[in-house]
Amino acid sequence: MNIDRIEQDLYALAKIGYCEEDHGIYRQAFSKADLEARKWLTEQLIKLDMQSYMDGAGNIIGRYGDPDRQAILIGSHLDTVPRGGMFDGALGVIAGLECIRIIQENNIPLNNPIEVIGTSEEEGRFGGMLGAMAITGGLTPDWVQHAHDPAGESLLDAMNACGLNERNLLHSRREPESMLAYLELHIEQGPILEAEGKSIGVVEGISGVFTWLVRLIGKADHAGTAPMDMRSDAFTGVADFAHEIQRIIEEDGTDKSRLTIGRLELKPGFPHTIPGEVEFTLVGRDMSQEVMLNLASSCRKVLSAIARRHRLMFEYEELSWLEPAICSPEVMQRIEAKTNELGYDYILMPSGAGHDAQFFTKVVPTGMIFIPSVGGISHAPDEWSHWQDVEKGCNVLLHTVLEIMQNGLQV
Amino acid sequence: MNIDRIEQDLYALAKIGYCEEDHGIYRQAFSKADLEARKWLTEQLIKLDMQSYMDGAGNIIGRYGDPDRQAILIGSHLDTVPRGGMFDGALGVIAGLECIRIIQENNIPLNNPIEVIGTSEEEGRFGGMLGAMAITGGLTPDWVQHAHDPAGESLLDAMNACGLNERNLLHSRREPESMLAYLELHIEQGPILEAEGKSIGVVEGISGVFTWLVRLIGKADHAGTAPMDMRSDAFTGVADFAHEIQRIIEEDGTDKSRLTIGRLELKPGFPHTIPGEVEFTLVGRDMSQEVMLNLASSCRKVLSAIARRHRLMFEYEELSWLEPAICSPEVMQRIEAKTNELGYDYILMPSGAGHDAQFFTKVVPTGMIFIPSVGGISHAPDEWSHWQDVEKGCNVLLHTVLEIMQNGLQV
Repeated sequence: MNIDRIEQDLYALAKIGYCEEDHGIYRQAFSKADLEARKWLTEQLIKLDMQSYMDGAGNIIGRYGDPDRQAILIGSHLDTVPRGGMFDGALGVIAGLECIRIIQENNIPLNNPIEVIGTSEEEGRFGGMLGAMAITGGLTPDWVQHAHDPAGESLLDAMNACGLNERNLLHSRREPESMLAYLELHIEQGPILEAEGKSIGVVEGISGVFTWLVRLIGKADHAGTAPMDMRSDAFTGVADFAHEIQRIIEEDGTDKSRLTIGRLELKPGFPHTIPGEVEFTLVGRDMSQEVMLNLASSCRKVLSAIARRHRLMFEYEELSWLEPAICSPEVMQRIEAKTNELGYDYILMPSGAGHDAQFFTKVVPTGMIFIPSVGGISHAPDEWSHWQDVEKGCNVLLHTVLEIMQNGLQV
Repeated sequence: MNIDRIEQDLYALAKIGYCEEDHGIYRQAFSKADLEARKWLTEQLIKLDMQSYMDGAGNIIGRYGDPDRQAILIGSHLDTVPRGGMFDGALGVIAGLECIRIIQENNIPLNNPIEVIGTSEEEGRFGGMLGAMAITGGLTPDWVQHAHDPAGESLLDAMNACGLNERNLLHSRREPESMLAYLELHIEQGPILEAEGKSIGVVEGISGVFTWLVRLIGKADHAGTAPMDMRSDAFTGVADFAHEIQRIIEEDGTDKSRLTIGRLELKPGFPHTIPGEVEFTLVGRDMSQEVMLNLASSCRKVLSAIARRHRLMFEYEELSWLEPAICSPEVMQRIEAKTNELGYDYILMPSGAGHDAQFFTKVVPTGMIFIPSVGGISHAPDEWSHWQDVEKGCNVLLHTVLEIMQNGLQV
C-alpha cells in the first residue's frame, strides 16, 4: 500500500463540494458536486485501464480482469451528508483504487475480476442506499416514483437532471451469480475502536433498527393548583421510562443493544402547565432479530406499567423495523485471519450505522472492515482517521481480496 | 344571599367578550370587551348608589358608606385569559355587589365603608396583577415603561387607547391606612376541594414560586454507533432528575410543595441522534420561603450529581423568585369562625395560583375564600362551580365582612 497515493486521492476528492466558509463537504446525491466526484472517479478508473461505466442508479463501476467470471466488489459511496467529512464513503472507494494499483504494479495474477464501485445516494437525501439497493434488487417502481428529498424535489427529477431515468434505474440490478463477494472499508463513525485501542474492526453485521413514535397522554393542569399526587403528568411517564432503559437492556438486551430517545415534544409546553401529553421517538437496535423483539416487548410492558402508574394513556406506532444484516461468517473469518497475519489489533463489532454493505449481505457474501474515527466523530468537518489506521485498513482490504481470489469461498 | 341575582350578574358579565365559536370569553386587559365589562360594573355600582370611579390603573372602585373611615375592600379582577371561563375573577366582584345589596336591603348599619373593586390586568397580558400592584404600590416607572404583551404592544400604548396614562397609573397607589381589610372570593381552579368534598377553602396564602431555566449539556452522537455506556445523553439527565422529584419533595418539601417540568427542548432533536443538550423549565412552589430554599438547594444538588454521573454540564438560571404571600391569620380566623357558624365544611389550603390578594397581603390584612372548581378546571370554557357552592362562598364573604366591621381587627 502506498499511503501517499491514498492521501492524495482523499484530498483530491475532498476538494469536490468543499465549502470554504464552514470547512464541510457538500456532496449530496445528484448534486453538481456529486456528479463531479463521479467524473473524477471515472477518470481514475480509466487511468488504471479499467472498464468503467455509470449504471442507471448513478453508481460508478470500474472493472479490472476477466469480463466473464464472478467479480469481487470493493465499494462504498461517493456522496456525503451536507457539511460532511472527507473519509465517510470516500475511503472505501479510494482504497479500491489503491488495491488495483498494487495488483497492477506487482503483476498479481487474477482468478477473478475486481470491481471498484462508487455507489450513489447512500447518505439519505432520498432515503439512502439507493445505489446499493439498485444493484441488489431492492427497488420497486412505486417507491422510486414517490421518493423525494426534504425540500420536496422528487428523486426522478433529480436523476433526470443528471441524465438518468427510472427504467435504467430498475435495470441496474445485478445477477447475484455475477458477484463472488462484496467488501467495504469504512470509518467506524463511533468511539469504540479508539476507546479499545484497536486499529481494525471486523464488522459482524449492521444492527437491526426499530423506530417507534410513542405518545403518553395525561391531563394538562395548572402547575400551582394541582397537587403532586393528583396529577397525570405525561412527562413523568417518559422520565420514568428513560430511567428504566438501562435495566431493560441489562435484562433483555446485549452489549450491542441501543435504546435512544432522540426527539421529544411536551404539550402544551408552558413552564406553569403540567404537560398533558408527550410524544417521543424510541429507536432500538441490536444485532439479533430475537433480541430486538425482546427489547420491543419489554419496552411495551414497561411503558404500559408506567402509564397505569401515572394515570396516562399509552399508544405507539412502529414507524419502521429493519432486520439486522449479518456479514458472511466466511468472509469475516478471512478478514480476521489476514488482520492477524498482518499483526494488527482488532475486535469483532457490529455496525450501529447503516452502510451499503447491508443490502449486499442479502445477495452476496459480504464483509466490512472498520478503522477508528478520532473522537468517534463523523458527518462533520472534523471527521478524521489517523493515516496509520487508514494504511492498516487498506492492507487488510487488499489481503482479504487476494485471499478470497486465491482460495474462493465455500458458500 | 340571593343566588338568582348572583347568577344573573355572572351570566350578564359572561356575555361581554363571549365567542360564539369556541364558547370562550375573551376579555383580555384593556381590550374593548374589558372596557365594556368595566362600564357594566360601573353601572351596577351606580345602581347601588355607590360612589364609583376608575383609577389610573383601570381598576373600577365603588364605595359605599362613610367617605373618611377605613374601608373593607372586596375585590377580584374583571379581565380574563383568552378563551377563559365565567367564574374566574368575575365571581369575586359580583359577590361584592351582592354583599352591598344585602346590606342595603337589611339596613345593616356600617361602621366602615365597603369598597367593591374590579381590578385590572390580573391575568397577565402585560405580566399580570397590574391593578393590585398599582393600589398596593408595587409599580415602578421603569417597569411600567417597558411592559409589553406577547404581540409586542406596550402597556402604555394599550392604556393610552383606553384614556389612561402613566402618571395616573402611578397615582393609583392607596395609603395602607385607608384600608381595613382586603377580601377576595375566588374559584379554586384546582381539584382539591372537590376531591376532599368540601365547599369552602380558607386560603392560608399564595405559594411562593421560583422558575429556573435549566440546561444539561452532553454530547450529540449517532444513536447507532455510540454504546450505551459511552454516551453523554442529556435526556437521561433530565429523566433521572424527574424521577427524583417525588423523593426531593418527600425529603425536603411539604404537602404544599410542587415541582414541575413544563417546557423542555431536546437538541438537536432527531430520532437517530443522542440528545446533546436539553433545556427545560423547573417551577417550584411552596407556602414557606424556607421550604422553597430547601427545595431549590436539593434540586441543585440532585442535578449536579446526575450531571456528573452522566458526564453532563449542568447550568441554570433563576428566572424569578416570588416569596410566598401569607394571608392575615386574624382574617383567616374570622373566615373559619363564620364558615363554622354557617355549618359549611372547609379546609385550610394554600393557593398555588397567583391572585390579586397576594399584593394586598403586603399592605393590609388580607383574606381569601375558595369554592370548588368542578374537575379542577379553569381558564377554559368548561370552568364551572356549582351554584350551591357559589352561594356558600358568598355567604362566608358577607358574614366575614360584617364580622370584621363589627369587631374590627387587632392588627
